[in-house]
Amino acid sequence: MAGKGDKPAKADKSAAVAKSSKGRKKETGLGLTNTKDGNFGEWYSEVVTNGEMIEYYEISGCYILRPWTMAIWEIMQNFFDPEIKKMNIKTCYFPLFVSNNVLQKEKDHIEGFAPEVAWVTRSGDSDLEVPIAIRPTSETVMYPYFSKWIRGHRDLPLRLNQWCNVVRWEFSNPTPFIRSREFLWQEGHTAFATREEADTEVLDILELYRRLYEEYLAVPVVKGRKRTVYVVLSFDQTTWDGQTHAFIPNTGRGVQGATSHCLGQNFAKMFEINFEDEKGEKAMVWQNSWAYSTRTIGVMVMVHGDDKGLVLPPKVSAVQVIVVHVPYKDADVKEIINACSATVKTLCEAGIRAEADLRENYSPGWKYSHWEMKGVPLRIEIGPKDLANNQVRAVRRDNGAKVDIPMAGLVDSINGMLDTIQQSMFDVAKQKRDACIQVTKTWDEFIEALGQKKLILAPWCDEEEVEKEVKAKTKGETGAAKTLCSPLEQPELPEGTLCFASGKPAKTWTYWGRSY
Amino acid sequence: MAGKGDKPAKADKSAAVAKSSKGRKKETGLGLTNTKDGNFGEWYSEVVTNGEMIEYYEISGCYILRPWTMAIWEIMQNFFDPEIKKMNIKTCYFPLFVSNNVLQKEKDHIEGFAPEVAWVTRSGDSDLEVPIAIRPTSETVMYPYFSKWIRGHRDLPLRLNQWCNVVRWEFSNPTPFIRSREFLWQEGHTAFATREEADTEVLDILELYRRLYEEYLAVPVVKGRKRTVYVVLSFDQTTWDGQTHAFIPNTGRGVQGATSHCLGQNFAKMFEINFEDEKGEKAMVWQNSWAYSTRTIGVMVMVHGDDKGLVLPPKVSAVQVIVVHVPYKDADVKEIINACSATVKTLCEAGIRAEADLRENYSPGWKYSHWEMKGVPLRIEIGPKDLANNQVRAVRRDNGAKVDIPMAGLVDSINGMLDTIQQSMFDVAKQKRDACIQVTKTWDEFIEALGQKKLILAPWCDEEEVEKEVKAKTKGETGAAKTLCSPLEQPELPEGTLCFASGKPAKTWTYWGRSY
Repeated sequence: MAGKGDKPAKADKSAAVAKSSKGRKKETGLGLTNTKDGNFGEWYSEVVTNGEMIEYYEISGCYILRPWTMAIWEIMQNFFDPEIKKMNIKTCYFPLFVSNNVLQKEKDHIEGFAPEVAWVTRSGDSDLEVPIAIRPTSETVMYPYFSKWIRGHRDLPLRLNQWCNVVRWEFSNPTPFIRSREFLWQEGHTAFATREEADTEVLDILELYRRLYEEYLAVPVVKGRKRTVYVVLSFDQTTWDGQTHAFIPNTGRGVQGATSHCLGQNFAKMFEINFEDEKGEKAMVWQNSWAYSTRTIGVMVMVHGDDKGLVLPPKVSAVQVIVVHVPYKDADVKEIINACSATVKTLCEAGIRAEADLRENYSPGWKYSHWEMKGVPLRIEIGPKDLANNQVRAVRRDNGAKVDIPMAGLVDSINGMLDTIQQSMFDVAKQKRDACIQVTKTWDEFIEALGQKKLILAPWCDEEEVEKEVKAKTKGETGAAKTLCSPLEQPELPEGTLCFASGKPAKTWTYWGRSY
Repeated sequence: MAGKGDKPAKADKSAAVAKSSKGRKKETGLGLTNTKDGNFGEWYSEVVTNGEMIEYYEISGCYILRPWTMAIWEIMQNFFDPEIKKMNIKTCYFPLFVSNNVLQKEKDHIEGFAPEVAWVTRSGDSDLEVPIAIRPTSETVMYPYFSKWIRGHRDLPLRLNQWCNVVRWEFSNPTPFIRSREFLWQEGHTAFATREEADTEVLDILELYRRLYEEYLAVPVVKGRKRTVYVVLSFDQTTWDGQTHAFIPNTGRGVQGATSHCLGQNFAKMFEINFEDEKGEKAMVWQNSWAYSTRTIGVMVMVHGDDKGLVLPPKVSAVQVIVVHVPYKDADVKEIINACSATVKTLCEAGIRAEADLRENYSPGWKYSHWEMKGVPLRIEIGPKDLANNQVRAVRRDNGAKVDIPMAGLVDSINGMLDTIQQSMFDVAKQKRDACIQVTKTWDEFIEALGQKKLILAPWCDEEEVEKEVKAKTKGETGAAKTLCSPLEQPELPEGTLCFASGKPAKTWTYWGRSY
């Protein structure tokens, strides 16, 4: 794997920057020292730390997820978990540890993870008899038990999901949320009697992932497929991954948002997951595995954040409305504060997540910057004039628009604004993403678009060898271009269209680009 | 620590039994091969595996938590998490890994965990530069950051909680839920400006733990305190643990149910968690940590289970009502099945967790045993006679009582029965527990009661040395007797009462016994 080796990890660059910028921040008060367009990587690191989502941890590649992050994670979980429960998928919890023996069983599967597996070799002062691995994912942890539990067709489908942490001891370029050595995720593992049922589930889950991204995180994604071929011993079966793919315009990189793998019968073969079908004959199950992780949150930060800090979609923000009192000289501060508290109370009672910042040792201006940094979607300011006019002033985080709102009908107005912000954030992100899509039909066009950080849509012959060649030819400092996914919704592909890379007849439209 | 060493763990005895009993079970159908009174340990292992709560895992001391378990865990979480959020405690997630350096910082704290710490020393094929520990608990993981985040009195209180897995590589006697090498828990970590606030929280959390046990798991607990003295360097401060203590009559053992530690300022001193108070003076925070784990579920199984298997309290059971159709010769099976489905639909719509078992390849009798093994609180049987009389038959799992219920008003009747079962399970458990309490005032009485597996309540001088002597004198194959806790609600202690063990003046009534 490119960029990986047995050298100890470099200290995260971004952590060092966050530190060195501290001096400057002390002088200038709040604000970022990097801009999104100027230095994306360091901007990102500053945004997630100053926005109090992440704290860098003393072990490189591990990050502390602060309450501001976990609130988003929990809101997503509160959408996704009931949805999969409706599909009769049950919660389980398998151990963190896996024996070498089992881990190695599916050799092709583990090959990708092997260099990243963390090994426990000691407890207290004693060496373990055999080292034990920490799960990088749980296929090999779970499937021996699928084999035990599944006997007949009545035991199917078996549909399990767990919420847990996994560990991948990566050495390249740790980045909060996007590439961390430990991360949180859900992993679904299911087994069916028929391929059709399995395929249907892949698409159902993919649709939930799309909704998570688009309806909750306001991040547009492409639903697509990627062909995966697992060759296990003498057993050969084409399988596919359903993916939701996002795109970061600033870096011109695609990012795999969440994946729903159609595993076919490969693991079933290795782990002997058989059942007696309705005719009394022995058959093998069809399996899926699917996961989304805390990476989703990193994608959301990258897409929406700006030079003032985080910009959070109302649906997932721990605080949707922050109420700040604006005391003027000679004004009755107490009355203003009471109005703020009353406003918060009214909004909370209506189910809006509102808080007041009534600290008297900070100026309103400082507070505006603080809550902008944290990405709160809507700020309400209340000063003497507002009080006199029986109104509040509302300021949108996403576009800075200001509007005076009469206290009468406040809840409806605010609910309306939050909906508008949510939709507008998605629309703007989609517009930006779409503006990056470049259709290319020739190699020259492709290379030009790649240089312009485009999300490239190109006709492709769908041959693995050709992708390898493209990777080899585009390998550079910023990483090689590769297929991101073939969109499920295919544009028309006129007969005779040729692959941009090989010149052979094209079989599918496919997105290409560099990726995280 | 008694019973621990550097030998590799023995294979769980109970796993072997579960295996060998399989042959017999095949002949006899369902049912347990051990009884609760006859061989408690093996009965327990059989109940949790046959009831499909636990699957033994290939790594000793690790267990698979199956959906039947996780449903209970989630219901408890759905009670506890909103309650602590109301207290303004926020969710966070700190890394699984901790450096040796930090782990060792609070030496007395880590001393108890050191032999049980699992160490990661390798990733892929490479040795790590320094071994990294897996958290046995997160005090030392978190508190360096408390120190960083807390500056002034406005940063207080800091109240965090995380839901996570922890690892304690114990070698003695692994037991599902009760003593496992990895377990799930919540751990709350909080810091306050004053001792009073911290003490109040300890009691608030203890009350939530009591409610979890008593209102959800129907297990009576004693709320008590235990004196803990942390001596850190030259710093000396008496602190205390608030505990909920349960008791298992069959084994005569107490079990620490969940603990809310008042940590005083010991960690604050070690990790320099200081703040500027309202007068501008430097002060140290007061801290608590509190946790409940999957152990709670094991206690519940031990208290309620019987010779037919699990007995689950309705409030936490994944399935509260199982509906079984009872087809008789010549009866219209389809009509009966429709009635079952309609019943389930009616109950589910009323918020009751009901399911039908309409499998035709199992007899009603087999199904009764199956669902009794799984502990479902209420079984509804529908046969031709019930259909004719427009009624259903309901059978309670906890006491076997049978009653015919008219279809009219079914929901109210079933809701009433579920409430009754919940209350009755608690009452019966409390009666049994109370019958085990023995007040002893002399050493001879104490030894006799201990032999009879009693939960001993005795007047005590509250001196650590005396407890050590009691432990030394009672050490035997089944473990030494020790203080369980001093109940918060103290019986009257007349002046002149002497300690049962030392003969010195007694200061408190304290529960004593063997424990898990």
